Amino acid sequence: MVEIDRYLSARAGLLKASQVRELLKWIGKDVISLGGGVPDPASFPMGEIKLIVAEILEEKGAAALQYAPTEGIDELRGEIARFMTKRGLKAKAENVLVTSGSQEALELIARVFIDPGDLIVSENPTYLGALQAFNVYEPRMVGIPMDEEGLRVDALERELRRIESVSERVKLAYLIPTCQNPTGRTASLERRKTLLELVEVHDFLVVEDDPYSYFYLDGVEPPSLKSMDASGRVIYVSTVSKILAPGLRIGWVVAEEEIIEKLAIAKQGVTLQPPTLSMYVLLEALKRGLVDRQIPKLKEIYRVRRDTMLEALETYMPVGVKWTRPSGGMFVWIETPESVDMDELLPIALTEYKVAYVPGSSFHVDGSGRNTARLSFSYPPLNAMREGVARLAKLIAERAALRAEPVRN
Amino acid sequence: MVEIDRYLSARAGLLKASQVRELLKWIGKDVISLGGGVPDPASFPMGEIKLIVAEILEEKGAAALQYAPTEGIDELRGEIARFMTKRGLKAKAENVLVTSGSQEALELIARVFIDPGDLIVSENPTYLGALQAFNVYEPRMVGIPMDEEGLRVDALERELRRIESVSERVKLAYLIPTCQNPTGRTASLERRKTLLELVEVHDFLVVEDDPYSYFYLDGVEPPSLKSMDASGRVIYVSTVSKILAPGLRIGWVVAEEEIIEKLAIAKQGVTLQPPTLSMYVLLEALKRGLVDRQIPKLKEIYRVRRDTMLEALETYMPVGVKWTRPSGGMFVWIETPESVDMDELLPIALTEYKVAYVPGSSFHVDGSGRNTARLSFSYPPLNAMREGVARLAKLIAERAALRAEPVRN
Repeated sequence: MVEIDRYLSARAGLLKASQVRELLKWIGKDVISLGGGVPDPASFPMGEIKLIVAEILEEKGAAALQYAPTEGIDELRGEIARFMTKRGLKAKAENVLVTSGSQEALELIARVFIDPGDLIVSENPTYLGALQAFNVYEPRMVGIPMDEEGLRVDALERELRRIESVSERVKLAYLIPTCQNPTGRTASLERRKTLLELVEVHDFLVVEDDPYSYFYLDGVEPPSLKSMDASGRVIYVSTVSKILAPGLRIGWVVAEEEIIEKLAIAKQGVTLQPPTLSMYVLLEALKRGLVDRQIPKLKEIYRVRRDTMLEALETYMPVGVKWTRPSGGMFVWIETPESVDMDELLPIALTEYKVAYVPGSSFHVDGSGRNTARLSFSYPPLNAMREGVARLAKLIAERAALRAEPVRN
Repeated sequence: MVEIDRYLSARAGLLKASQVRELLKWIGKDVISLGGGVPDPASFPMGEIKLIVAEILEEKGAAALQYAPTEGIDELRGEIARFMTKRGLKAKAENVLVTSGSQEALELIARVFIDPGDLIVSENPTYLGALQAFNVYEPRMVGIPMDEEGLRVDALERELRRIESVSERVKLAYLIPTCQNPTGRTASLERRKTLLELVEVHDFLVVEDDPYSYFYLDGVEPPSLKSMDASGRVIYVSTVSKILAPGLRIGWVVAEEEIIEKLAIAKQGVTLQPPTLSMYVLLEALKRGLVDRQIPKLKEIYRVRRDTMLEALETYMPVGVKWTRPSGGMFVWIETPESVDMDELLPIALTEYKVAYVPGSSFHVDGSGRNTARLSFSYPPLNAMREGVARLAKLIAERAALRAEPVRN
């Protein structure tokens, strides 16, 4: 057999397998997964979706399975624009690009905007799927720390000044301002305003990734950056994965028409178009108010799940472990004592303790954070989730104790 | 509003809109489309698909709408492997990657294998979607002419020797050996054997794109290159778009396991996974023999369509226009007198003559072929197709006559 390595592109060397995707393989075995952000399947409105699918196949006939425009079906673009407008983002159909999941949206944005060496700012830690989409295009990532109020805009401003002092500039910021992945934190309104001022003054673009704001649990959700965007600098990305069903593979971008056109041309070479039947399902789900009805139900499901995980962490975690109190979304972020290496612990967790999580280093733009991890509260039954946290707590406690004592021969 | 051009990547300048996708916008108006390779919607087995979808949603429940593995559902990979094995390509589940249409397969192959400046050999003309996928990664394309027996392997060998004489080498060949897009030509068995010898001697890889061999109409179809591949150098790509329905957005790659693993890692950053419901639909369609039953029906549909178009060309086209006699697939390739510029004629054809086609220059790796065009016989009703050919013939005849006479003031 021919030796394949000789033919690979240099780029292939930059491709890193996602630990989250690898983890998905363990779900359904005897391992309790606190890994991927897999939605609670009980939340899918199966009865209504069955009805919608049957009606689409009956009424649309072959059109439901035929080719469709790259940008998405026109009527769906219009419905998404209306849905977004209700959420405070004024948009017309021409401002919407439908994608094969929001992952494709991130890929297309990276393709159209990132040149090798470009400076991209993000929260640190940040969503690893975005890092996967971006890394292929070889930017230099600049991670900005967060606190309980979200992105540290003071740290961002300092970093922007430092960058300009060496005659460079930031091209874009990738941010998840609401219920951030992996920390669950939400940027305050004040921070958002300051951020957008910095964007204007320092002249860059913003990608606002927003899969989770639908599950904001702490009162009135702050407005999206896009809704506050007066100059067309914000490229907004969302998805149906968390509010209807991820297997449909439908995401979307809301941006200036000129940007949508560029992304659509790029899309022709990547996937041609989103899946047609999925687009019709979302169209009907929006038209019939199904998505609107889902959101309050999902809030209650994920509120109980979040609170259960926070209680379990309180009950089981040893002293010295810290965690975030997420304002929504699907994740809690934990920080263990420095001596504990969560990358190193993962195989032991999976094979001996039968619990899965995602090591925090995957989410860091600089490979740091080996004493951190992301725990998802979205998927396992509540009892299993408590048990999973207990197992993980036991492993961390044992490991921390072991490391605290000097090794003797 | 901010000026977007300042932020675009250099790569964004390489992105070219597909004329075929632009043409799709005209379908359904008063324009007869001989443009895109859109399958005859009457060929979709709607009754059986409705049944399958209803049963999947009932039996699989939420799993039909949940996240699934990047590589595709295991059982589907196994079924595709069996389907391929029946067609002469010995494959196991581990040799199969399910993709979001074969367009994504081409994108992933390009991503994993093409470095800027790499030499890629293809038939000239070739599939423009492949050119779109490849061009972003900046290869140098080397077009090889065809004749009635397919790729001119003598010309290929000469080119390979020339390339090696200047101390360069070809990295891979992109070929559509059966019912080629856009010419409809099929490479003979003899040519395939010689090609694979050249591949070994000159040490490159082959991407075999095979959407159309299911509709090979001229007797026994020659074996795929992949079925003759002893050294793992062939990466085979196919799709459900032409044999079941394109809106499902399901394609696949068959290759050595090591290649599949690399492509799967790349896929995480592009689309995460193919649409779940579509994967289950294909799984059931394969298990129940629906795809096997479709193929002979499709052959009859497309045989009648091809023959109708060939008759219409014979009836209407003026002297001096030549065309291929496709051995299957969806396309006839026409060549007009040199004086006729089919790029230039397209807007007139669309607006005045109300007929759409794809100018041939889009399919050429070197921008040549302005007196050529691709006509699709897959979509319009037979009478409309005849009328479309008549309209186009009239336009070409008028234009050829105009150009043949010297211009006087």
